[in-house]
Amino acid sequence: MAFKKAGVLGATGSVGQRFILLLSKNPQFEAAVLGASPDSVGKRYEDQVVWKQTSLLPDESKDLILQKCDPEYFKGCDVIFSGLDAAVAGEIEKSFVDAGFAVISNAKNFRRSPEVPLVVPTVNSEHLEVIVNRAKAAKAKGVARPGFEVCISNCSTAGLVVPLKPLQDAFGPIRYVSDTTMQAISGAGFSPGTSAIDVLDNIIPYISGEEDKIEWEAKKILCNVNKAGDGFDILSDDQLTVSAQCNRVAVSDGHTECIALKFLNRDKVPTLAQVKKCLRDYDCEATKLHCPSAPKHAIYVLEDPDRPQPRLDRNRDDGYAVSVGRVREDPIFDFKMVVLSHNTIIGAAGSGILIAEILAAKGVL
Amino acid sequence: MAFKKAGVLGATGSVGQRFILLLSKNPQFEAAVLGASPDSVGKRYEDQVVWKQTSLLPDESKDLILQKCDPEYFKGCDVIFSGLDAAVAGEIEKSFVDAGFAVISNAKNFRRSPEVPLVVPTVNSEHLEVIVNRAKAAKAKGVARPGFEVCISNCSTAGLVVPLKPLQDAFGPIRYVSDTTMQAISGAGFSPGTSAIDVLDNIIPYISGEEDKIEWEAKKILCNVNKAGDGFDILSDDQLTVSAQCNRVAVSDGHTECIALKFLNRDKVPTLAQVKKCLRDYDCEATKLHCPSAPKHAIYVLEDPDRPQPRLDRNRDDGYAVSVGRVREDPIFDFKMVVLSHNTIIGAAGSGILIAEILAAKGVL
Amino acid sequence: MAFKKAGVLGATGSVGQRFILLLSKNPQFEAAVLGASPDSVGKRYEDQVVWKQTSLLPDESKDLILQKCDPEYFKGCDVIFSGLDAAVAGEIEKSFVDAGFAVISNAKNFRRSPEVPLVVPTVNSEHLEVIVNRAKAAKAKGVARPGFEVCISNCSTAGLVVPLKPLQDAFGPIRYVSDTTMQAISGAGFSPGTSAIDVLDNIIPYISGEEDKIEWEAKKILCNVNKAGDGFDILSDDQLTVSAQCNRVAVSDGHTECIALKFLNRDKVPTLAQVKKCLRDYDCEATKLHCPSAPKHAIYVLEDPDRPQPRLDRNRDDGYAVSVGRVREDPIFDFKMVVLSHNTIIGAAGSGILIAEILAAKGVL
Amino acid sequence: MAFKKAGVLGATGSVGQRFILLLSKNPQFEAAVLGASPDSVGKRYEDQVVWKQTSLLPDESKDLILQKCDPEYFKGCDVIFSGLDAAVAGEIEKSFVDAGFAVISNAKNFRRSPEVPLVVPTVNSEHLEVIVNRAKAAKAKGVARPGFEVCISNCSTAGLVVPLKPLQDAFGPIRYVSDTTMQAISGAGFSPGTSAIDVLDNIIPYISGEEDKIEWEAKKILCNVNKAGDGFDILSDDQLTVSAQCNRVAVSDGHTECIALKFLNRDKVPTLAQVKKCLRDYDCEATKLHCPSAPKHAIYVLEDPDRPQPRLDRNRDDGYAVSVGRVREDPIFDFKMVVLSHNTIIGAAGSGILIAEILAAKGVL
Repeated sequence: MAFKKAGVLGATGSVGQRFILLLSKNPQFEAAVLGASPDSVGKRYEDQVVWKQTSLLPDESKDLILQKCDPEYFKGCDVIFSGLDAAVAGEIEKSFVDAGFAVISNAKNFRRSPEVPLVVPTVNSEHLEVIVNRAKAAKAKGVARPGFEVCISNCSTAGLVVPLKPLQDAFGPIRYVSDTTMQAISGAGFSPGTSAIDVLDNIIPYISGEEDKIEWEAKKILCNVNKAGDGFDILSDDQLTVSAQCNRVAVSDGHTECIALKFLNRDKVPTLAQVKKCLRDYDCEATKLHCPSAPKHAIYVLEDPDRPQPRLDRNRDDGYAVSVGRVREDPIFDFKMVVLSHNTIIGAAGSGILIAEILAAKGVL
Repeated sequence: MAFKKAGVLGATGSVGQRFILLLSKNPQFEAAVLGASPDSVGKRYEDQVVWKQTSLLPDESKDLILQKCDPEYFKGCDVIFSGLDAAVAGEIEKSFVDAGFAVISNAKNFRRSPEVPLVVPTVNSEHLEVIVNRAKAAKAKGVARPGFEVCISNCSTAGLVVPLKPLQDAFGPIRYVSDTTMQAISGAGFSPGTSAIDVLDNIIPYISGEEDKIEWEAKKILCNVNKAGDGFDILSDDQLTVSAQCNRVAVSDGHTECIALKFLNRDKVPTLAQVKKCLRDYDCEATKLHCPSAPKHAIYVLEDPDRPQPRLDRNRDDGYAVSVGRVREDPIFDFKMVVLSHNTIIGAAGSGILIAEILAAKGVL
Repeated sequence: MAFKKAGVLGATGSVGQRFILLLSKNPQFEAAVLGASPDSVGKRYEDQVVWKQTSLLPDESKDLILQKCDPEYFKGCDVIFSGLDAAVAGEIEKSFVDAGFAVISNAKNFRRSPEVPLVVPTVNSEHLEVIVNRAKAAKAKGVARPGFEVCISNCSTAGLVVPLKPLQDAFGPIRYVSDTTMQAISGAGFSPGTSAIDVLDNIIPYISGEEDKIEWEAKKILCNVNKAGDGFDILSDDQLTVSAQCNRVAVSDGHTECIALKFLNRDKVPTLAQVKKCLRDYDCEATKLHCPSAPKHAIYVLEDPDRPQPRLDRNRDDGYAVSVGRVREDPIFDFKMVVLSHNTIIGAAGSGILIAEILAAKGVL
Repeated sequence: MAFKKAGVLGATGSVGQRFILLLSKNPQFEAAVLGASPDSVGKRYEDQVVWKQTSLLPDESKDLILQKCDPEYFKGCDVIFSGLDAAVAGEIEKSFVDAGFAVISNAKNFRRSPEVPLVVPTVNSEHLEVIVNRAKAAKAKGVARPGFEVCISNCSTAGLVVPLKPLQDAFGPIRYVSDTTMQAISGAGFSPGTSAIDVLDNIIPYISGEEDKIEWEAKKILCNVNKAGDGFDILSDDQLTVSAQCNRVAVSDGHTECIALKFLNRDKVPTLAQVKKCLRDYDCEATKLHCPSAPKHAIYVLEDPDRPQPRLDRNRDDGYAVSVGRVREDPIFDFKMVVLSHNTIIGAAGSGILIAEILAAKGVL
């Protein structure tokens, strides 16, 4: 099978590097065109990137010449992965969608757009039906290739919603969620990202904009597609209230979140055993579709009292699985637990790749 | 003024070392007798201790000969500070109380005893009235020197209750408290304490017994002395419910706690400005009594969005002050905030010293 | 091809865990019998081990019942990997050799025994000829299976000697080597290993016994097999002098060593370009023999000025390759460079596995 | 005694902040005028600085209005401390010297100027005689106030030369010095300084320009004033050869250096005991002059095998003392040892303050 061709926008940045690294090992997609900022255009990728991954820069990407982030240089690409900074992502991504490209973006710019799916691929891949519907409608109208955008969620949101999804499916709406995060420094990029002096022997109890993202994005990711099939019935504050407190800690990769949750339906509150079983049995669509990057299990429920731990558990199923531990009853909410997710895989570039695989499985890419 | 003489039990351990270091700088008390485990008895302190403090071992303690932890070797001591392990603290401390000593202990053994005050000195020094009353009663009965014990609270409990106290005093009972902690490794001692491989690039989302301590001790510390003046009307679960999630992180000193709280009286809920003012204006008894170790302010309210931070703020007022930041409204509870306390000062040995100073000011020592 | 059966002594310890993890992925050997200390004997491995690896405990090892470290329980094993502590390794390993087993040990006990090869498999696999010769001689005498021991070198020694070997082969004896190490905490095990408070925001400029190991072991590893083919012409201090300064730092895996070296033959001192080429071209026997765990390149020479770095480079070729960077002229010695090696792979258990693969390729196992 | 007035150039940077913090506690000098870059001029210091010190911003500096780094705004200042970046330090500092100011600079720009003393105040304060001589000569010519500059050495150089000085004084020239450093991140500033991802679970074996600074600066600091008394007989490579290898590690403050040295005079090589005694007895001029910031001992010789350690020993004598441990014989050089120095005190701003105190004691300020 020939590889589908991927374009990567923001290829020299930390998210872009992750896209390229993941694509180098992917059996369906390959990094075919790399886009960068104007001062890098025309230069070899290897010469411009400050590669900071634990695997060496893939040989096949070294000689690629960096292109302007303009649709005309990405002809032939089946999908565009965007690791662009929010400062420039809006205009550039729009130009690609307008030109008929499928754009999967890690930037925050369009996450709140009513027609754009905000997707954690092991959680709400059914939201991609909006794209499928639109593709059908376009085809009916004779449009061969309608452009669209799918947004990857914020990294700490991704970790939170994975265990919430099966619980909501099984036991009804979740009314309250308290979430205190301890987030890895890789989430802040590395140009320069977090300063070493700020996290060595230290904690930064604040990440600009992060708490708001978690509190809002969870309500979109956990909602239903609207009746028209072209948007989302985003949950209101009265249906789901999330309170987040975000901290940056001295961990390289892996966000740890101490969460507590309370179900809406008080006559249907599950037992602790039911909660654990529900999490353990969760089988996401991506796994059922046999997407190459889909985790064997979207959730691992750990029973050792001191797990999950970022250093030991973040790479479970190549970072696409979330580990949940210390599931127990809570004296204020119903249950509390610790959730660990790999912030650059399921929380960023990895989700983008898996979304593309799901779209391909659904016949849209 | 002559120094009052202090005995230190468990002098070679991490808490004992802190007692000795703090006493070396204290204008009222001096470390006069050091007690250790049987295999160290009879040896010079400098030869037995693995001193791991950032100040050098005080000269005056180097040559002290380690004694058996038996009251007969501590004659002449005005107060006994215990840094003993829980495994041996029970029996030994009881023998000192029985022998008429004033024992201030960092061990957990007697924290839940009805007649023993559990004290964070900048919070509930009024609980020490039970000791004052007992001393008067004893004197009336002709007992010159009745032994007693005061317990220092668990370190993470100490950080939590400091801001809760003035809020409770001003706005009535606090019904719910959610507390997620990120605790320093020094809290685990160092023989060997936490293993390096467990916290480097990692978080341990579990500290054995810690959550239960926080959830219970807060109810004793924040309660009133009973009518008889000889015990405590410990709050029930219906009066105060605390839910704690405890994590060990790569910080040397300083516990950071993300807390949220909800007041009981719904018609009296303060505004954000009132909460901040209340915290800022808090003036504890130890400060009013001019105790030498009392902080200038028991609480510092920080307005920078990314504070408090352990490395920058833990040593405020020599570690006796607690820093509170990010005070803001919470969509589930009433308010949320970040609390930072120095776990080995206000959370352990330092509290012991300040309790002794308060007792001296009240004429009991 | 059927797997060869391996026994693992000290299976619950940190080195033992690494052996089991590596064996679970090995195409030639499988962990068949696990030996542990008396209090663990008779229990399931999963129930006794505190598994601290980043991969999950292999399914096939979970149910293995821990055995006494006695040869009679290891019948049928083709090779014995020992991760025993030095305190017990001496007697136990001897009993296995006496019983005719091939023992590959990470313990230090027999490293200095004249007849025992001390082997870094990418450096001096030719030292294993002593074993081959002995096997032939034994067979000639009718001994079907002569027991023997091979020792894995100390972890920091392994990193040092890899680049020294090709340089010595090409440019003659190396007279002086200065080596300052910055060693990972995993080298100290984890029961409890290094205390967190000792390396957080800190360096321990001392590792007991380590400097002596480096200074001595290099002289055995870099020497020739003696004429009789049954021992080693260990280099004298006059032939090779190594001065080591060892530090423990806050790195999880990967020893970094700043080395400088001076050749003996002053008329044959290579140029910088020759040194780099020599290192880059080095092709070790294990690679030539196509051993499954052999690195593609025993040495990677990095040209970026700030490499190698432990977090980025330690896993090169699954930890069996050593990375060398900053190769440059030295104003006192001839050349200086930075060497990075994975201390638990090429520096410990991994070397054991690769030694076994070489022995199998040579027909001895 | 009235305070002497100090101007601080680059007041918002990390070195500038340290100057201001140290001056707030200094009994002789006070921060009177603060200079900053053009975009900060005219604004309150508290509003412009991102204060990252462990002590709070001194009250007396909060309201100071930031001035342009131009001599006309610094009238009345007795001394100028420069924490400017090298990019701008050259021109600005020259303008202050030309205007008759005493400039003490942490920048590297003039360190190699023949007439500028490069001073570690506990090492070569006698180099300041050049300034004293020049002041006398100027006065003879009727110049009331001749401007001059003194340079603070590079931070890692400072740590190295402290123990070398008394050894050189006692046992003659030191021919060879090998120095492998493990340097704290605070040395890289914090805007942004070292990126967290670069030192967490990692080492950067490279600091741009650092090795060259050590190798050259040591030869100026350890040399004699020339006969004319107006410059320095900088040591040649044939008199002193230093080889440095520099690493950045996850330590907040405190540079650790593993050094080895060989004396020139082979017939006069001291014993280990003599070396230790010489270091222990070293008494620097600043201490003899009773300068307020002078350390009680310029050198502490530690006998515990695992000391010095940055977290435990860097603040000895408020960071003005250097700790030396593991002094032992070396098989290649004569002796090796570990040297720890506080890089922002004796290695930067603190040295500037102490140089000013010495100049004041010598009657030049």
